[in-house]
Amino acid sequence: MEDKGLNSLKNPEKVFLEEQKQVVPGSVVTALMEGTRPILVEIQSLVVPTKLAIPRRVAQGIDSRRLEMLLAVLTRRCGISLYDFDVFVNVAGGIKVSDTSCDLAVCLSLASAYKNKPINKNIIAVGEVGLLGEIRKVKFLEKRVKEAKRLGYKTILSGDSFDNLNQAIKKTFDR
Amino acid sequence: MEDKGLNSLKNPEKVFLEEQKQVVPGSVVTALMEGTRPILVEIQSLVVPTKLAIPRRVAQGIDSRRLEMLLAVLTRRCGISLYDFDVFVNVAGGIKVSDTSCDLAVCLSLASAYKNKPINKNIIAVGEVGLLGEIRKVKFLEKRVKEAKRLGYKTILSGDSFDNLNQAIKKTFDR
Amino acid sequence: MEDKGLNSLKNPEKVFLEEQKQVVPGSVVTALMEGTRPILVEIQSLVVPTKLAIPRRVAQGIDSRRLEMLLAVLTRRCGISLYDFDVFVNVAGGIKVSDTSCDLAVCLSLASAYKNKPINKNIIAVGEVGLLGEIRKVKFLEKRVKEAKRLGYKTILSGDSFDNLNQAIKKTFDR
Amino acid sequence: MEDKGLNSLKNPEKVFLEEQKQVVPGSVVTALMEGTRPILVEIQSLVVPTKLAIPRRVAQGIDSRRLEMLLAVLTRRCGISLYDFDVFVNVAGGIKVSDTSCDLAVCLSLASAYKNKPINKNIIAVGEVGLLGEIRKVKFLEKRVKEAKRLGYKTILSGDSFDNLNQAIKKTFDR
Amino acid sequence: MEDKGLNSLKNPEKVFLEEQKQVVPGSVVTALMEGTRPILVEIQSLVVPTKLAIPRRVAQGIDSRRLEMLLAVLTRRCGISLYDFDVFVNVAGGIKVSDTSCDLAVCLSLASAYKNKPINKNIIAVGEVGLLGEIRKVKFLEKRVKEAKRLGYKTILSGDSFDNLNQAIKKTFDR
Amino acid sequence: MEDKGLNSLKNPEKVFLEEQKQVVPGSVVTALMEGTRPILVEIQSLVVPTKLAIPRRVAQGIDSRRLEMLLAVLTRRCGISLYDFDVFVNVAGGIKVSDTSCDLAVCLSLASAYKNKPINKNIIAVGEVGLLGEIRKVKFLEKRVKEAKRLGYKTILSGDSFDNLNQAIKKTFDR
Repeated sequence: MEDKGLNSLKNPEKVFLEEQKQVVPGSVVTALMEGTRPILVEIQSLVVPTKLAIPRRVAQGIDSRRLEMLLAVLTRRCGISLYDFDVFVNVAGGIKVSDTSCDLAVCLSLASAYKNKPINKNIIAVGEVGLLGEIRKVKFLEKRVKEAKRLGYKTILSGDSFDNLNQAIKKTFDR
Repeated sequence: MEDKGLNSLKNPEKVFLEEQKQVVPGSVVTALMEGTRPILVEIQSLVVPTKLAIPRRVAQGIDSRRLEMLLAVLTRRCGISLYDFDVFVNVAGGIKVSDTSCDLAVCLSLASAYKNKPINKNIIAVGEVGLLGEIRKVKFLEKRVKEAKRLGYKTILSGDSFDNLNQAIKKTFDR
Repeated sequence: MEDKGLNSLKNPEKVFLEEQKQVVPGSVVTALMEGTRPILVEIQSLVVPTKLAIPRRVAQGIDSRRLEMLLAVLTRRCGISLYDFDVFVNVAGGIKVSDTSCDLAVCLSLASAYKNKPINKNIIAVGEVGLLGEIRKVKFLEKRVKEAKRLGYKTILSGDSFDNLNQAIKKTFDR
Repeated sequence: MEDKGLNSLKNPEKVFLEEQKQVVPGSVVTALMEGTRPILVEIQSLVVPTKLAIPRRVAQGIDSRRLEMLLAVLTRRCGISLYDFDVFVNVAGGIKVSDTSCDLAVCLSLASAYKNKPINKNIIAVGEVGLLGEIRKVKFLEKRVKEAKRLGYKTILSGDSFDNLNQAIKKTFDR
Repeated sequence: MEDKGLNSLKNPEKVFLEEQKQVVPGSVVTALMEGTRPILVEIQSLVVPTKLAIPRRVAQGIDSRRLEMLLAVLTRRCGISLYDFDVFVNVAGGIKVSDTSCDLAVCLSLASAYKNKPINKNIIAVGEVGLLGEIRKVKFLEKRVKEAKRLGYKTILSGDSFDNLNQAIKKTFDR
Repeated sequence: MEDKGLNSLKNPEKVFLEEQKQVVPGSVVTALMEGTRPILVEIQSLVVPTKLAIPRRVAQGIDSRRLEMLLAVLTRRCGISLYDFDVFVNVAGGIKVSDTSCDLAVCLSLASAYKNKPINKNIIAVGEVGLLGEIRKVKFLEKRVKEAKRLGYKTILSGDSFDNLNQAIKKTFDR
């Protein structure tokens, strides 16, 4: 039989990230915890002017109700209104995310797609976003940061870097 | 291996509360029971004038049917009608609430967002709200109060403080 | 540690009932079986003239399909039409009811809210309601009655008291 | 303690049937199998001219898709069209039916409510109804019949009595 | 006690088939596998000109998404458009089908109901139908055929008999 | 007894593929992993100009939310807009696919049906498709390729063959 079983990989955390051939708007990397171990995944967004009375919201890998909430925060706290757009969010690699630490990455990914500006590929974003527009701390931040640095990421965006989501989006895209 | 396991925290009850940088309308703290242990969590609300025929109600962490009921109580018993608003409620920290003791905090949070007036940050609110507009007692109130005081909260709003929800909202916001 | 475990209560059956500060329309007490033990709970209803094409029916603690059926019985058999009202029913205390013995209490609670007349607070109601408008017997009626009397309730409304639901509503509210 | 446990009843099969005070249109008794034991239950229907674009179909105790199918059979095979009616079906006693042997009783109950003619109270109906309008045999028919007779029912309507559902309805109501 | 337990039947495979009193359009027999054992069941269809904007599709015993797919194949590959019809499909005997081997029988049953032409009662149909209109082989075909022949069926329609579904419908109904 | 149990097949991987009698637009083969073993399955698409306000999307064997996402990628990244079409996707053989490695095959199948051009029958397609239009690597690609070659497939389309989905579609259909 030709099965060699599960090989142990040198960088399993990177398995869900592809070498990006070019930088495309809508893509942001975040660090999740898989048990006590961080893994890096890519959040992708696509926003398309809608033809429907009720615009579509399709979430692959994140809770679609969470997506609706984050869209409301973007509208109310950051002036990014996606009422007239179909919105699609995907976690690359077919991964299902169940915690809220990817909120910041989802929001930046949506802003990137909306503004049609890519995000620098040395950046990852980690943080929960609240209804008040604040960026909240997440558990095991140090561990996530350490892993991201080991894999070559230079900048970690989190609640420590910004007062709130509005400022985060401004500083990330308007320079 | 670098995992040190689960550390024991000095104030685990506070883990879901962030240092609030500024006081924002829509935020109210409540005390839940996690088994026999109280934890403090922040309820957040956002109300936005709607553009839809059927306004949206998005609940993160509380039952969306419960939210609909509480909105009916606010309309009928307290004169706060949110028919023309999209309503979003979020329990910060990604926590799922399954009992009814956070009803009062949800209602005050909605009133705060609607009136655009913040709530004093020394306050927590604990109580079930009934369809008749009454505030009902909850189990383990003493334990919750004790914990809240230990963490620095000065005022506990509950069924003991007010005749009903209408009075609670009036006394909290109209002074 | 300060936990004293679960205390044994003198009147655990009363835990879900609050001292009612005033008598409000829409509130009716019933007796459920929790295993082989009766507990008394309060059913609450709120009816509000609707602004929607399809009126809302929100049930907290009872099956929403059951509510729809009981509304049809009220319309057809008792002349109480709630087509133009949003209807909310709540079981106080966050309790979930899975049997049909609270039907009569739900129907009287809806009639009370609709007629805006409160029900005497010495009364409990126990009985299944059928599609034909009849009030059906429930299991363990004696046990429920005994418990209700022990807790001070004077009058028990059931299938023994009335020919059918229409008569029950007439006798309860039109005197 | 006052609990005497589960008493053995003399006629447990009759527990779900009430003494009917009067004969009302829409009520038909059937015999179900509870494991290898027959129980008799009452099927109730209520049909109300609808005010809605899409008429309501509310089923308590039977599958609502099954109800839709049987309504189609009544329309196409028996000339009883309930398109302009809200339809409610209830299995009295809060019982959930999962097999198809109550189809005939459901159909006769709907026809009885529609024609506003009651069914003789000595009758039970047992049989699956197919899309072609045929009445199909059910398992353990003998056992069901025996039990029904023991409890005083004189006439058993089944696939043996009629060529098809259309004939069953004609013979039952047009004499 | 009168229970004699489960009797062993001489022809258990035939239990779900009734003696057909007359041949009615919409009825087609197929052979399913129940574990490693074939059983014969009757598929029934009813198509009714619709009064609704969105025609109804009610499936009893088969997956309703599968039904939608097969309706698309009938429209696109065989020129049988059921857009303006309510469609009901039932597996007689209350059986739930979970594989795709009854696709051909469902399609022929729909075509029979649509064309109002019955199918000869010596025929059974076995085969998966693909989106391209092809009839695909199924597992254990020999076993199914053997059983059908033992019970008196003369003709077995399958992927071996026809190039595709269109040809199958033409040859079955247009002779 | 006539059961011979489960026979061991020479080419079990091919069991879900039929000898294709003719090449039809909308059919593309992919290689899935069933545990650690590759199996080849056929993805089929059918696109029909719609008569409905909200076009239908029926997915048999793949997640219908995934299908919606892939349709958005086709619209935005490849200029293939299926807004005015009912779309049906089927995995032949009744197989349920739960990973994302069939994305490329689904997209090529949809493009083939839309352009009404068949795909060469020596080709299989393996790859996840991201929201940015990129084709991502999948696990065990070598194993899948080896199996496909053993069964006679000459060409394997994957993320290695193309820069992105747009290029994949162009190169596959426009030569």
